[in-house]
Amino acid sequence: MATELPGWTVAELANLLGGVGYGDTGSRVCRPVAADADDPQGIAFAESAEYLQRAAVGRVGCLIVPPGLEPGDRTYIVVESPRVAFHRLLHLVAHPLPLNTGIHPSAHIDSEAEVAADAHIGPYVVIERGAKVESGVRIYPFCYVGEGCRVGEASVLYPHVVLYQGIDVGRFCILHSGAVLGADGFGFVWDGSRRIKVPQVGGVRLSDEVEVGANTAIDRATFGDTYVAEGTKIDNLVQVGHNVRIGDHSVIAGHVSIGGSSRVGARNMIGGQAALADHVKTADDVMLAGRTGVTGDIRESGSYFGLPAQPHRQGLRAAVLATKLPELLERLRKLEAKLEELGR
Amino acid sequence: MATELPGWTVAELANLLGGVGYGDTGSRVCRPVAADADDPQGIAFAESAEYLQRAAVGRVGCLIVPPGLEPGDRTYIVVESPRVAFHRLLHLVAHPLPLNTGIHPSAHIDSEAEVAADAHIGPYVVIERGAKVESGVRIYPFCYVGEGCRVGEASVLYPHVVLYQGIDVGRFCILHSGAVLGADGFGFVWDGSRRIKVPQVGGVRLSDEVEVGANTAIDRATFGDTYVAEGTKIDNLVQVGHNVRIGDHSVIAGHVSIGGSSRVGARNMIGGQAALADHVKTADDVMLAGRTGVTGDIRESGSYFGLPAQPHRQGLRAAVLATKLPELLERLRKLEAKLEELGR
Amino acid sequence: MATELPGWTVAELANLLGGVGYGDTGSRVCRPVAADADDPQGIAFAESAEYLQRAAVGRVGCLIVPPGLEPGDRTYIVVESPRVAFHRLLHLVAHPLPLNTGIHPSAHIDSEAEVAADAHIGPYVVIERGAKVESGVRIYPFCYVGEGCRVGEASVLYPHVVLYQGIDVGRFCILHSGAVLGADGFGFVWDGSRRIKVPQVGGVRLSDEVEVGANTAIDRATFGDTYVAEGTKIDNLVQVGHNVRIGDHSVIAGHVSIGGSSRVGARNMIGGQAALADHVKTADDVMLAGRTGVTGDIRESGSYFGLPAQPHRQGLRAAVLATKLPELLERLRKLEAKLEELGR
Repeated sequence: MATELPGWTVAELANLLGGVGYGDTGSRVCRPVAADADDPQGIAFAESAEYLQRAAVGRVGCLIVPPGLEPGDRTYIVVESPRVAFHRLLHLVAHPLPLNTGIHPSAHIDSEAEVAADAHIGPYVVIERGAKVESGVRIYPFCYVGEGCRVGEASVLYPHVVLYQGIDVGRFCILHSGAVLGADGFGFVWDGSRRIKVPQVGGVRLSDEVEVGANTAIDRATFGDTYVAEGTKIDNLVQVGHNVRIGDHSVIAGHVSIGGSSRVGARNMIGGQAALADHVKTADDVMLAGRTGVTGDIRESGSYFGLPAQPHRQGLRAAVLATKLPELLERLRKLEAKLEELGR
Repeated sequence: MATELPGWTVAELANLLGGVGYGDTGSRVCRPVAADADDPQGIAFAESAEYLQRAAVGRVGCLIVPPGLEPGDRTYIVVESPRVAFHRLLHLVAHPLPLNTGIHPSAHIDSEAEVAADAHIGPYVVIERGAKVESGVRIYPFCYVGEGCRVGEASVLYPHVVLYQGIDVGRFCILHSGAVLGADGFGFVWDGSRRIKVPQVGGVRLSDEVEVGANTAIDRATFGDTYVAEGTKIDNLVQVGHNVRIGDHSVIAGHVSIGGSSRVGARNMIGGQAALADHVKTADDVMLAGRTGVTGDIRESGSYFGLPAQPHRQGLRAAVLATKLPELLERLRKLEAKLEELGR
Repeated sequence: MATELPGWTVAELANLLGGVGYGDTGSRVCRPVAADADDPQGIAFAESAEYLQRAAVGRVGCLIVPPGLEPGDRTYIVVESPRVAFHRLLHLVAHPLPLNTGIHPSAHIDSEAEVAADAHIGPYVVIERGAKVESGVRIYPFCYVGEGCRVGEASVLYPHVVLYQGIDVGRFCILHSGAVLGADGFGFVWDGSRRIKVPQVGGVRLSDEVEVGANTAIDRATFGDTYVAEGTKIDNLVQVGHNVRIGDHSVIAGHVSIGGSSRVGARNMIGGQAALADHVKTADDVMLAGRTGVTGDIRESGSYFGLPAQPHRQGLRAAVLATKLPELLERLRKLEAKLEELGR
């Protein structure tokens, strides 16, 4: 995406980032780029000599550097922390997906739904009876907000989010496209000839500042709520089973599966494709490496890896040894042969 | 979700559940809760002393117990099977996602589509030419029913279901939000410089009482049909490749991948993240533990685990031993050292 | 799906496929079927004696066979390559999902969007400000094309595709239902008490002839573009993280996860459920077997398997040996016992 922004002069930008500009400070720059980009309107950060070397190859309009790393014959801005300044730059160029103010005339709002005057409701949105949409909420096209849902203050539902009935979304939440909250939990009882559906009469509740990735599914509880605590971030294509509870400020990467009735502790970090079986728990401050499989409770904080999950170093060691099994077998065979000889 | 239902007196509920009420049978209760909940309007079940102990902590309005487990100084209902009674209770409080009767004026129905008079078609639904929607069907907002599709009697399409052309959905099926039936199978031929698409001219056919989870994808066949037999339940985010056939009354958990042209037997139970490679078969009554990978046909009923899939006990044993490889290596080293000594 | 086409006489079809018809060449056939199907209007191919044997069981109206494999008392067409002829037949019966010409009146097109006169825009499509839809493009119902997006010549967006702002889709691309391009990359910084979102200000760029499967998510870059090169085909439910670059003419199967900032080489073939960690690279012409996990750079072309990824033969050998660990342990125990005896 070639962001077409008016941009700033280097002098203006230095001001905005709390630094000092050098070189051609009247030149205009407008977008963040990689250090080695060939973009005279680009701004890159270089926090080390290595970055600076990469930058020497490219033609970036302005470099953001720490004191002591001045790149000589270039245009640059000196700041205390280039990384923090670059982060600030990202905020300066961030541009939300545009949305009309008020309620778009093509939206379908039930007369018994309650929508705050300053909420933004896009075209082709459906909001059902008894739903409550709070102040500053942004609901993009094709979202479905089911009966009795609440969407808390300043939360964002990107295009194509589905909330079944009775879903409670906290404040400052972000739900990405294709996220489905509240589909039936996967519960059936075998009656000897077929599977009888167990009604799923519970809901889903997200606390504040939760982010849910694209095409992620969080099932409604059998009764009570499936729950995600404050500040937890869930990536794309994640499966959260019914009755699950996820602690605060956790991070859950793409394709993770969390089995029904499991509990994830606070500040967990769960790598891609990892899984929790049904009815297991993790402690607080647990880190699961990608594709780890949790089949029993993890009671101690720490890093884990493998299937079944083991302490990380140990799991990694076992995985590496598993790749050496042919060699181990060879050593075993030699021992057997030697012993055979000795035994004669 | 705080279900706000009028509820029942304990006496009324005891009647509905076929039991007998004790204690304050005139008090009102309205929702199922966990045994240890703090909810005077909640109803919990306690089928064992353990549950009863948990219930002692909480303040549930009414407990459902079996004969012989009366909790003394509480309000409770005695029934033969608390679990069956609780299941019945879930049915009593279940509340379908509301939907208008008839065809919503904003729905786009092709003049050559056929919609039963008692079907429910929500806002912003598209039903294309030649599609047939049978009696009692419920189609929620933003569903797309492609040309020549059939949606059988009493089936439900939750918001955002996509049926490409020529998809056949049986009776009493439930398709959750984001389910996509009939996207092209993944077939390409390498012509020496690029991949040529193999046209996918087949369809997808679901028999009766099939459930398909949120954001699950079932691809259309190259020709003929990808097929799911009667009573099979598929969870969220499952991938079913083209030409696959799944037997009746199977259960397939989240994130399972079924490779193209594979066949799943009847009454299979497939755990989360498990996978079948292309062109493999499983027998009837096979159970695959989570993350099992089937790379060759499974010809015998039974439980399997591992990659490649092995009989469950054996696979589990191997997985546990794999975590002990560092220790096994140590034993091997000791043997080598001893033998070295002996050989001198 | 029972394709109801007028079909052809066998004589006509022989002509279309560049072959010669035998038997009842006046009979009508209309759809491709399996060799053993029971369908007098079906056409099957039989490139070997094995296929012919299967065909003997069924009642297919017409067989396509190579010279020298004439099935005697049947109706058939002889062609040089039955497989190529069958492929051509699939093209003959392929029937695109129907779509109105021009812009459907219910579509919501921003006045500052640019839509080619011969593009097809279905009902309930949203196209935002500054978006550009090129000649021959087909956009099905419920698609969202965000601000400043481009959809290149002749590309197809099936129902329910979401393009966030600034997404660039090349020419002759196919995006299946539920594909989400441009959701925020998964970037957060821990500030000691909570996770701060790193703004994701980049975009997603697809080159020409890229196919994206149902419910697949491709995240926008932090800055710059997440990029998929020409001719690459991505299956359903795939996760492509931010800043990823995928080389040309690669094939990526269902449920694959590609971690942030990773690079996939040209002509890679990545099997189902395989994964790349963050910040890793694969060389050109790499094949990853299903569920392989790439945790470090792969610098050599070739086939790989396992977690961590190993050369395919070696990885497979290790996996098979891992299933034999109980037996290896037994052998180890015997050695220990023998040595114990000898040591006495």
